[in-house]
Amino acid sequence: MSGFSFEVLQRDGAARRGRLHTDHQVVETPVFMPVGTQATVKSLDNERLRQTGSRMILGNTYHLYLRPGHERILELGGLHRFMDWDGAILTDSGGFQVYSLSDLNRIDEEGVRFRSHLDGSAHHFTPERSMEVQAALGADVVMAFDQCVALPAEREVLEEAVDRTTRWARRCRDAFGPRRRHEAGHEQVLFGIVQGGLDRDLRERSAAELSALDLPGYAIGGLSVGESKEELHEMAAFCAPLLPQEKPRYLMGVGFPEDILAAVTAGVDLFDCVLPTRMARNGTLLTHDGRLPLRNARFALDERPVEEGCPCYTCQHHSRAYLRHLIVSGEILGLVLGTLHNLTFYQRLMEGIRRAIEEGRLESYRRDFLQRYLSNEGKVD
Amino acid sequence: MSGFSFEVLQRDGAARRGRLHTDHQVVETPVFMPVGTQATVKSLDNERLRQTGSRMILGNTYHLYLRPGHERILELGGLHRFMDWDGAILTDSGGFQVYSLSDLNRIDEEGVRFRSHLDGSAHHFTPERSMEVQAALGADVVMAFDQCVALPAEREVLEEAVDRTTRWARRCRDAFGPRRRHEAGHEQVLFGIVQGGLDRDLRERSAAELSALDLPGYAIGGLSVGESKEELHEMAAFCAPLLPQEKPRYLMGVGFPEDILAAVTAGVDLFDCVLPTRMARNGTLLTHDGRLPLRNARFALDERPVEEGCPCYTCQHHSRAYLRHLIVSGEILGLVLGTLHNLTFYQRLMEGIRRAIEEGRLESYRRDFLQRYLSNEGKVD
Repeated sequence: MSGFSFEVLQRDGAARRGRLHTDHQVVETPVFMPVGTQATVKSLDNERLRQTGSRMILGNTYHLYLRPGHERILELGGLHRFMDWDGAILTDSGGFQVYSLSDLNRIDEEGVRFRSHLDGSAHHFTPERSMEVQAALGADVVMAFDQCVALPAEREVLEEAVDRTTRWARRCRDAFGPRRRHEAGHEQVLFGIVQGGLDRDLRERSAAELSALDLPGYAIGGLSVGESKEELHEMAAFCAPLLPQEKPRYLMGVGFPEDILAAVTAGVDLFDCVLPTRMARNGTLLTHDGRLPLRNARFALDERPVEEGCPCYTCQHHSRAYLRHLIVSGEILGLVLGTLHNLTFYQRLMEGIRRAIEEGRLESYRRDFLQRYLSNEGKVD
Repeated sequence: MSGFSFEVLQRDGAARRGRLHTDHQVVETPVFMPVGTQATVKSLDNERLRQTGSRMILGNTYHLYLRPGHERILELGGLHRFMDWDGAILTDSGGFQVYSLSDLNRIDEEGVRFRSHLDGSAHHFTPERSMEVQAALGADVVMAFDQCVALPAEREVLEEAVDRTTRWARRCRDAFGPRRRHEAGHEQVLFGIVQGGLDRDLRERSAAELSALDLPGYAIGGLSVGESKEELHEMAAFCAPLLPQEKPRYLMGVGFPEDILAAVTAGVDLFDCVLPTRMARNGTLLTHDGRLPLRNARFALDERPVEEGCPCYTCQHHSRAYLRHLIVSGEILGLVLGTLHNLTFYQRLMEGIRRAIEEGRLESYRRDFLQRYLSNEGKVD
């Protein structure tokens, strides 16, 4: 196993067409990672998941730590073997879920005390503990334990979180190293996370301090947490060039197709978001002409596939009318087929982005995609 | 399209190894039909469903009539096209669900008045209406509208139901014919249903009266509705030889592997049951060594597949520990993978039965299977 590396193959303005080498999978970037919270991308088996074009997924450290437990997963060979996923995996630090899902979280310099949302049991996450848990899980990329602040926030709060995030990142690197070999033999690398909310000075400070740690990759955190879409796009565009040119850049928890296109244009390489999978479970299917709210009665006799020309199993086999019936009837298969399609839609978007960068026409791809996708919003038939 | 026919290829005692020809699918019998209540065998896409070895499924007329409605399904080309299933389909008459699921059902000679369990709306099912609905759905085999009685029951109640079932079967045949061509071009045939509870005289009378109608196939109804396992086996064995030798025999809503083995031995050819799919959704997986209640903590670190040697996707890819995690965590994929395995288990049982009949060793197959399957009950690891 030759370990982790990243290469930029081509540029189009600030945008990068790259390749992430991990011991499990070579990942073409820009890449979208479906969210596999509890060691499964909800409803899809791995064969179907691969068919969507997905090659790298995200696992949630908080959830896996609570259930089934990182020690159990280590005993079972690590997360890849546990869930039989032979692609790449990135785990988050657990911080975001500790802040948003758990009860009674109390933050101090040492770490965060919280109670499990499952059974109320008391837990203490520190940078060292997050590293220990992620080392056991064995993802190809692990994330530093950071302090994420909901927006809007006071400058003092943001500043404290930025400084603490830097101190915690140092502790993460000291505990984990920038690179580490998992028991199963593959290499794991640590990414740092830039914080600072919508404050440019703080973002610059955070990026500079973290870059000095010389980690294998960097993420832009603390966005998609309450700010406007314009603020998100501006801040992603502001942050990306602050991060080392030769290293992968990851915008956490983002987002809608328009957000991904904006961030790619600014030079971001990795994305994850629950949107395509969660929307599918709510009965909203995505197409290049906008969203289809399939519960709507107007689809009851619609024999067309969700999207003409889509290569996914769902579109190759089933009508909107049938999918609507499954969704309205609360059938599990509706969730499966919807997830399959929405992830395929996202991966086709990423494939289109990668090709556009290769051919130096990202700006026109973005414009054409958004014109079609957004202009039909709400009036798709 | 050459239409429906049935041939008995081989016999082993009273057991029959047969072949059901339908315009959609040649079906090897004895056959087990998974239940696809709402135009889907819960959680499985058709490709995975075929991988289990399933070639003929059952649809529920009551559910499809209420949602999305038989007229809508007809407009969309019939049930096969609606759900994109190119195997064979049998629909029940709707009667059983009207009695068991709906509110305020009132039975008289004309039919049954009931209220939808979905929205309380008032409906009236008659033999003619059931035929109209099933003709629209377009299953390869449709069932006569019968009166099923929960057991135990008084003789007068059973007798009235038997006589009414005969009169209703005549009305069904008059309305539908023994055979009919669906708009989509394929042939549909009508099966009669023998009633009579545990009363042998009534069962004989019912079988004789219905046989006189010369329908393309016959079912044994009114079992698995409250009687003991011994009574079920005895009555299935009593009824099977009362039905025409040259026609397919279907034991409705049955059952456990031991029930299927008993009925096959007596000469039954078709089965359906929610058991494998429902058990999977409850986290109970089936193996030749008995049931695995996967929620049990003892499976938490069990790296073995559900069943060694099982060819299903689940067993080829995943451990008991992973499946347990999915089930305990309420993950959709746990339902998918469990259903996939349990149906594969049932279809392997049927394949074993068919081979045993061909080789004249059904009795020893049954004995060996049950010895292994039942003796481990409750102590499987």
